[in-house]
Amino acid sequence: MEPIDNYIDENRDRYIEELKELLRIPSVSAESEHKGDMIKAAEYISEKLQDAGMKKVKIHKTDGHPVVYGEWLGAPGKPTVLIYGHYDVQPAGDPSLWKSDPFDPVIIGDKIFARGATDDKGQLYIHIKSVEACFKANGTLPLNVKFLIEGEEEVGSENLEPFIIANKKMLACDSVLISDTSLYAPGLPTLTYGLRGLCYMEVEVTGPNKDLHSGSYGGAVANPVNVLAKMIASLHDKNGKVTIPGFYDGILQLSRQERENFKKLKFSESAYMKEVGVKELAGEKGYTTLERQWARPTLDCNGIVGGYTGEGAKTIIPSKVSSKISMRLVSNQDPKKIAKLFTAHIKAIAPKSVKVTVKELHGGYPVITPIDGKATIAASKAMERAFGKKTVYMREGGSIPVVAAFANELKAPAVLMGFGLNSENLHSPNEHFSLTHFMLGIKSSVYFFEEFSK
Amino acid sequence: MEPIDNYIDENRDRYIEELKELLRIPSVSAESEHKGDMIKAAEYISEKLQDAGMKKVKIHKTDGHPVVYGEWLGAPGKPTVLIYGHYDVQPAGDPSLWKSDPFDPVIIGDKIFARGATDDKGQLYIHIKSVEACFKANGTLPLNVKFLIEGEEEVGSENLEPFIIANKKMLACDSVLISDTSLYAPGLPTLTYGLRGLCYMEVEVTGPNKDLHSGSYGGAVANPVNVLAKMIASLHDKNGKVTIPGFYDGILQLSRQERENFKKLKFSESAYMKEVGVKELAGEKGYTTLERQWARPTLDCNGIVGGYTGEGAKTIIPSKVSSKISMRLVSNQDPKKIAKLFTAHIKAIAPKSVKVTVKELHGGYPVITPIDGKATIAASKAMERAFGKKTVYMREGGSIPVVAAFANELKAPAVLMGFGLNSENLHSPNEHFSLTHFMLGIKSSVYFFEEFSK
Repeated sequence: MEPIDNYIDENRDRYIEELKELLRIPSVSAESEHKGDMIKAAEYISEKLQDAGMKKVKIHKTDGHPVVYGEWLGAPGKPTVLIYGHYDVQPAGDPSLWKSDPFDPVIIGDKIFARGATDDKGQLYIHIKSVEACFKANGTLPLNVKFLIEGEEEVGSENLEPFIIANKKMLACDSVLISDTSLYAPGLPTLTYGLRGLCYMEVEVTGPNKDLHSGSYGGAVANPVNVLAKMIASLHDKNGKVTIPGFYDGILQLSRQERENFKKLKFSESAYMKEVGVKELAGEKGYTTLERQWARPTLDCNGIVGGYTGEGAKTIIPSKVSSKISMRLVSNQDPKKIAKLFTAHIKAIAPKSVKVTVKELHGGYPVITPIDGKATIAASKAMERAFGKKTVYMREGGSIPVVAAFANELKAPAVLMGFGLNSENLHSPNEHFSLTHFMLGIKSSVYFFEEFSK
Repeated sequence: MEPIDNYIDENRDRYIEELKELLRIPSVSAESEHKGDMIKAAEYISEKLQDAGMKKVKIHKTDGHPVVYGEWLGAPGKPTVLIYGHYDVQPAGDPSLWKSDPFDPVIIGDKIFARGATDDKGQLYIHIKSVEACFKANGTLPLNVKFLIEGEEEVGSENLEPFIIANKKMLACDSVLISDTSLYAPGLPTLTYGLRGLCYMEVEVTGPNKDLHSGSYGGAVANPVNVLAKMIASLHDKNGKVTIPGFYDGILQLSRQERENFKKLKFSESAYMKEVGVKELAGEKGYTTLERQWARPTLDCNGIVGGYTGEGAKTIIPSKVSSKISMRLVSNQDPKKIAKLFTAHIKAIAPKSVKVTVKELHGGYPVITPIDGKATIAASKAMERAFGKKTVYMREGGSIPVVAAFANELKAPAVLMGFGLNSENLHSPNEHFSLTHFMLGIKSSVYFFEEFSK
């Protein structure tokens, strides 16, 4: 592989200049004033894919921002990898909180500062350059490659799933490669192989038909806030387990191997507590903190409101109270089934003295990519070669709904080979990306093509 | 008493005309634009007290709206009664909800419609006219009478307690007579002999130092909403009893006589449930609905707010949540002591994973007037004579803080001889007052003077 490595190192400055140009386009998907910038970014990606050697590159219209697709299928008999990324970015937010213009990238030391640097422009550009390097240094790719780059990840990827369903044949692949996650620590090669799913509900409890005077009526009429508090409290048992019947049915338990892998990460509880500002952690008994947040299902109130919440005192029994309650899911929990179990349980535990309505707001499937799968093993070896260290395996507590769509619609496992860092201010001011990781990423991508083609 | 009765009946039309004139003054204490009307109302009361035969009538300035005081102490050796009332009224609210001008009284059938008709102008005017009737028909009063009419009842009587403390000698009396409550049913003579006290607290629970992503952190960090829900839920046991240690210490239990009196009121649970729109009542086991709301202490959340409460879904673990929690108290619960017990208990049950702050917002003492006291017996006999029915005894679940001030500062029991009805829309549009009860009130007041002077 030496000619490719040399080519990559020699072209470092140009790669960074090209990335800067991409970062200069304020492709903020949430803000309609940037509609033209979205097209500009899609066109830039499209042009660079063609320059790299991809064929049939096309900007596909959707009901929202366009999707860029390109492919090279010149390796018959070899596997096909579909590379997913997104060219849209979060809004910059308050410009006064930025030390430099969010859309005028600056490099300080090893870091490039700009909105989208790590999420996801810097990471997706890695693969465009790895493809270019293969063609320029070797004249070919060792496997078949497809690119699917969307412009709506930051606003929920609403039009991507229909696009995938409508283009299953075009997108068919053996594995999906995504660089939109983080390394566990700087310089430490990391694969994320699990994402939690989500089931987001809203519960409204109505007691009396209007706010009542708490003096005249207190003690005789059920108070919906007290009732809801009791219901919420009952959703966990004393060991921190969720009490909804059927909630844990059929879930994949953590294997001994996974638990050992997590242990090796040497997670610091004290640093974590300091970061979030608490004196004690809490959660399901029998699991470590990492296990709880990556691999165990949870139930959290995301918000609650009811009755008098202004200054001072108002003596009422509120008529209504509502709470948003969401559950993070792990394989094989189905968000639709969990929503039904939750609704049935809430209705079952509600006393007759109140009326309860339950709404399903949002859901997403959990994803697990087997760590002994071919693509994951290839990715692990590739990163190990690039970084010169043993690859670690982690999961992520959050959800990337599109990953489940790839699994369900394309039947293709996703490899989450991310090169960002959680400390790189994604979604915050002064977002940045390590240029060292950018370069190691390009090499990792090239090595992945080679390893996966074997 | 026939000459007085005749005098009262003959002067009915004039009494009503005078009341109408008082009701025309928009003496809304909460609205500063009515400051001049407050003085006008105080002057009108003052003039009518003098016309009725009261001496030393004076409008006393306070830091807020003025207090009107007058006395007649021409019955040495006889008891002294202090009559309390208030000339201020609630704001009229949305005028489109009124069928007539709130400050232009109209009479439809037996009802006079105007803001303040039942609360409290109509009721306080009863006693001014009873005094007038005594002087006009008999040339004298059978006991000593003092009037204390304030203008800030609807805004919390903030300046009245200091006034009472500063004028203890002037206000010294054997009993306080108040007409600012309701009859249990139309035409049914009723004495209210107990009011609940109040202890109003606010609890704030802080978990992480900022809102956290519920995906990345869910399961590892205590969620303050779930924690507060659990704490609130634990404040009642399965029998609906409050679990705060010491909460029930030393409280006066309901006597068998009281429970029998309540039973005789033939309270309709089905009508009550229909009124408040619930399918089942709830509360402390072992007590009837009337006992629960009049004579048992309670704990209610008045409001709660925390986390995301807008439309749709936001996946956070909130940093903070707070709830206003108030307790209604019965004799001999001390609101200051209860506030301390509550605070200590909340701190004791809070897990180490969160920070908890507790604030005391407001408090008021409960009041019980012994039903076998001299003034209460006199009031009972007086109402019985006027109404031609046996007087019933009730309590009230709410608080009138000034009654506790009379008990504590003047050592005088209060007789709550109200002539309103709960259905007369006090604090709502289309407030009204029964003219039959107005006339029966004047006679009850005259008979009370006679009975209490014996």
